[in-house]
Amino acid sequence: MDVDELISSSKLLKHWPSLFITLALIWIVKRLFFKGNRVLKTYNLDEQVEEEVEHFADLGDELQPALEDKPHVPFVPGQNLNPNGAKRLYELMRGRRSIRSFSSHPKPDLSVIEDCIRAAGTAPSGAHTEPWTYCVVQEPELKRSIREIVEQEELVNYSQRMHPQWVTDLRPLQTNHVKEYLTEAPYLILIFKQTYGLSENGKRMRRHYYNEISTSIAAGILLCALQAAGLASLVTTPLNCGPALRNLLGRPVNEKLLILLPVGYPKDGCTVPDLARKNLSNIMVTF
Amino acid sequence: MDVDELISSSKLLKHWPSLFITLALIWIVKRLFFKGNRVLKTYNLDEQVEEEVEHFADLGDELQPALEDKPHVPFVPGQNLNPNGAKRLYELMRGRRSIRSFSSHPKPDLSVIEDCIRAAGTAPSGAHTEPWTYCVVQEPELKRSIREIVEQEELVNYSQRMHPQWVTDLRPLQTNHVKEYLTEAPYLILIFKQTYGLSENGKRMRRHYYNEISTSIAAGILLCALQAAGLASLVTTPLNCGPALRNLLGRPVNEKLLILLPVGYPKDGCTVPDLARKNLSNIMVTF
Ligand SMILES: Cc1cc2nc3c(=O)[nH]c(=O)nc-3n(C[C@H](O)[C@H](O)[C@H](O)COP(=O)(O)O)c2cc1C
Ligand SMILES: Cc1cc2nc3c(=O)[nH]c(=O)nc-3n(C[C@H](O)[C@H](O)[C@H](O)COP(=O)(O)O)c2cc1C
Ligand SMILES: N[C@@H](Cc1ccc(O)c(I)c1)C(=O)O
Ligand SMILES: N[C@@H](Cc1ccc(O)c(I)c1)C(=O)O
Repeated sequence: MDVDELISSSKLLKHWPSLFITLALIWIVKRLFFKGNRVLKTYNLDEQVEEEVEHFADLGDELQPALEDKPHVPFVPGQNLNPNGAKRLYELMRGRRSIRSFSSHPKPDLSVIEDCIRAAGTAPSGAHTEPWTYCVVQEPELKRSIREIVEQEELVNYSQRMHPQWVTDLRPLQTNHVKEYLTEAPYLILIFKQTYGLSENGKRMRRHYYNEISTSIAAGILLCALQAAGLASLVTTPLNCGPALRNLLGRPVNEKLLILLPVGYPKDGCTVPDLARKNLSNIMVTF
Repeated sequence: MDVDELISSSKLLKHWPSLFITLALIWIVKRLFFKGNRVLKTYNLDEQVEEEVEHFADLGDELQPALEDKPHVPFVPGQNLNPNGAKRLYELMRGRRSIRSFSSHPKPDLSVIEDCIRAAGTAPSGAHTEPWTYCVVQEPELKRSIREIVEQEELVNYSQRMHPQWVTDLRPLQTNHVKEYLTEAPYLILIFKQTYGLSENGKRMRRHYYNEISTSIAAGILLCALQAAGLASLVTTPLNCGPALRNLLGRPVNEKLLILLPVGYPKDGCTVPDLARKNLSNIMVTF
């Protein structure tokens, strides 16, 4: 039967119930998979905004602010105008490099790590939600378990899971799935973003706006503090290890691993990739 | 007609073509909307990984590394062990507050802003892609246009688009859609993440792994440099303004607005919300 025949025939009329069911089902499926669509269409949102606008209904509906409503207070500047301050911070940070070979000794004082995390804790955050948890691992046994989980997954990443372009792009860094630094570095800091929070009585869910951006900004401040202390580190994102590492540390389901950061002193004779950084003119545009 | 009747009747048999069409259509719709599923199922990925694993095919298929393949070089430490360094950085950063009222004068030297962006440019990035662009706006006319775009969208955000819980959670900050700081602050830094890049000859697409995390870490370092210089700022995420602001500045489509950061000195008598920060024991867990 060709199309002309179908259209002209009475079959179309005879089968209208099936057509109706079909269309209804498509509509239902679409509704199920695209909850946010209605809002998106009404307001013509840019695609990035979707996440922020959606999924409000399922977090309970008492309208109390997550923070206390209090009068504002005068701003007390923490630091006076210092025209050399920016340059000095640049000079400090341009010495930072990602280190992939750490020595176990000497072990920096935990108090230094604490000061670094205190610094990270001063970061701004969406609606002041402070959506971060820092797990500091020193225990050799636990580091070994972390290393096992990561090496197992990274082996799959390098050998099968990831696109050959990924493997090719990483080649100049000379990384592979073997992660000695996970047992050799004196500290592993596992940075979790909290995708939502709980109110003080643990009853009400709190929305953690922009939790990934906020936690990453805090990580940037952490890197500054580590560098100021003379400590080396490596930002890593062990692909597909998040849930296993979260379970290993007994962290709750609202926390998702963002960064695994080994911290310590570089091993003697440690080398790094011969990388150049972009010039200012390549990253800044003035108007 | 009730369900029993339907099942026992011969209608089910008679209507099998409609049923078949229905099921086929559901399958097609599902396929269309869930491209990545096959990979996900094969490897049992955690949900966060999806984005990194997907969409490799559409970026061209020459396997050249994005970086040059070069021998590694000895690591030269930039800063010696400094047990007080972390504490000093904490003392610097704990004075940082988000300021929402800026004075137009004095205007900090552009060279200070440049040093801050240089500092941000030392940030680590996924596979050293440096996926960031900093647009520095001083031009009063342009600031006015930016303010118009933002106020228009934020009005919709506050009055209609966002869930009442969002409005309630923000109430303690006493913000609204009026954004005087966008014309009063001497500088607006618009931080764009580059979602992908181009190779030097502009021919080949480059994958920008973790571009949002990397650009946010760099923003954290930028905040440290601004603070070291004695400058105040405000991290803002003007919801749904990204594309309009990108077009206004003539930035390419691979760049997405991440943060709009007014920078300057606080206005005399400037107040801030009376916020407390979490204690170390609430953000750090040791193992
Ligand atoms: C990712 C992110 C997005 C933010 N978005 C806005 C915003 O759109 N408007 C605003 O006034 N403040 C915004 N803020 C600032 C927060 O409200 C502020 O950091 C928080 O209230 C804590 O105050 P503090 O920075 O003074 O410590 C944002 C902060 C972050 C980290
Ligand atoms: C978001 C992010 C993820 C990263 N993931 C890894 C990783 O999984 N493994 C690794 O060895 N390095 C990782 N890095 C480090 C980068 O490879 C490194 O920053 C880049 O090569 C530049 O080198 P530099 O940090 O010495 O300037 C990551 C960096 C960032 C910012
Ligand atoms: N972008 C709006 C609302 C706002 C405000 C503060 C904040 O932390 C967050 I997340 C959002 C505005 O700038 O008013
Ligand atoms: N996570 C892997 C691969 C890797 C390596 C470097 C890098 O910048 C990125 I993004 C990924 C690993 O750690 O080996």
